[in-house]
Amino acid sequence: MKESGILPEDESVHCSRVLRLKSGAEIDTVDGDGNAYHCCILDSNPKGVSLEILSVTSEPKCWKGSLTLAVAPTKNADRMEWLVEKAVEMGVDEIVLLKCDHSERKVMKLDRLHRIIVSAMKQSLKATLPLLRGPVPFGEFMQESPASTACKVMGYCSPTVERRDFGQVFHGGDLTVLVGPEGDFSPSEVQSAMEAGFVPVTFGMSRLRTETAALYAVAAFHVIENLNND
Amino acid sequence: MKESGILPEDESVHCSRVLRLKSGAEIDTVDGDGNAYHCCILDSNPKGVSLEILSVTSEPKCWKGSLTLAVAPTKNADRMEWLVEKAVEMGVDEIVLLKCDHSERKVMKLDRLHRIIVSAMKQSLKATLPLLRGPVPFGEFMQESPASTACKVMGYCSPTVERRDFGQVFHGGDLTVLVGPEGDFSPSEVQSAMEAGFVPVTFGMSRLRTETAALYAVAAFHVIENLNND
Repeated sequence: MKESGILPEDESVHCSRVLRLKSGAEIDTVDGDGNAYHCCILDSNPKGVSLEILSVTSEPKCWKGSLTLAVAPTKNADRMEWLVEKAVEMGVDEIVLLKCDHSERKVMKLDRLHRIIVSAMKQSLKATLPLLRGPVPFGEFMQESPASTACKVMGYCSPTVERRDFGQVFHGGDLTVLVGPEGDFSPSEVQSAMEAGFVPVTFGMSRLRTETAALYAVAAFHVIENLNND
Repeated sequence: MKESGILPEDESVHCSRVLRLKSGAEIDTVDGDGNAYHCCILDSNPKGVSLEILSVTSEPKCWKGSLTLAVAPTKNADRMEWLVEKAVEMGVDEIVLLKCDHSERKVMKLDRLHRIIVSAMKQSLKATLPLLRGPVPFGEFMQESPASTACKVMGYCSPTVERRDFGQVFHGGDLTVLVGPEGDFSPSEVQSAMEAGFVPVTFGMSRLRTETAALYAVAAFHVIENLNND
């Protein structure tokens, strides 16, 4: 028996109306769970393109460790959307939107971020969809996985707390990174993060905006993992 | 004798009209050549704020190697502007806009990019202004500094050429990075770059857009330099 499937509505509209693909055309799709499907269009209905699956291949993610980026949304939503796109392109497993004491923005349109994530996943030829959730209050996130074996770091701007460079702390494996809002983490957040095992770090020597620090962390995760693969 | 100075017109308008600073207010300024000045406003004229310089401090750049990022402008100018902002925040010495065989965009508004660079320099508390030039035809850039001792890498997407991960090639010091346009470098560009000593590299395992690859390279430069400082 032949396997078949139907594209979601937004992808169907894109396939049928934008790409103008007809029955018989072959396309490649992913399911977001690490599988890629080579398919033949049976019916190019913009409300739901039906497909015959010609072959399935497993496309595991191309990095080993698990990267969780927990970041306070920036005041300017564009900067956050840009960060999410770039983080997914470079490779991230989970993005958590943190609600912090100094957050100027407490909410983000998750459906919009979700679409950006799907688009960046496809653009960068990945088959696994990163998780997105939030807003999660900072204190609540600190209660999660207290016994996690992941390396846990917190980007912090103030030199009032002893900080190490990120590369001194992360040597590969799983990583959870906290990046605070424009006003930085509050002293009580820093205290509770350190109690939860997060190490205060700097991301290089420059003062970076929230979204730049977060993207530096994502890039640094991959740079260090790839160095270990040498 | 007291040292004095006058702010450029755009900064004067910002100081006088936006920040509404009056005579007697103290401000910090930088000259883009690595010097920071603590000043007192003598006359808050929006056409040229005059200042008395109270003290000068040398603020050398906070990284050791010299980083030249030579990148083909993206079709979408926003993506390029974003890259320039982020590269300056993280730290870059020179940005060269390359004109490549497959470039869809051959020109960029340099004055607009210049303003973004100044703003990002100030935002990230730097006192040295990165150089910006272009568009430079690819072949012309290959003729420059043929005997450079810098590590020279070229991001290249096609597996038709043997590539190494960036971290296997760059171990600190000076770096020149080439990043091609959306359509990648042409085979003849790859050939001439290799003849000029550029090593084809990958930036991690993902397929990245032009601006994402370029920013990964900038972050990786700093990650690796900071690892060497440990």
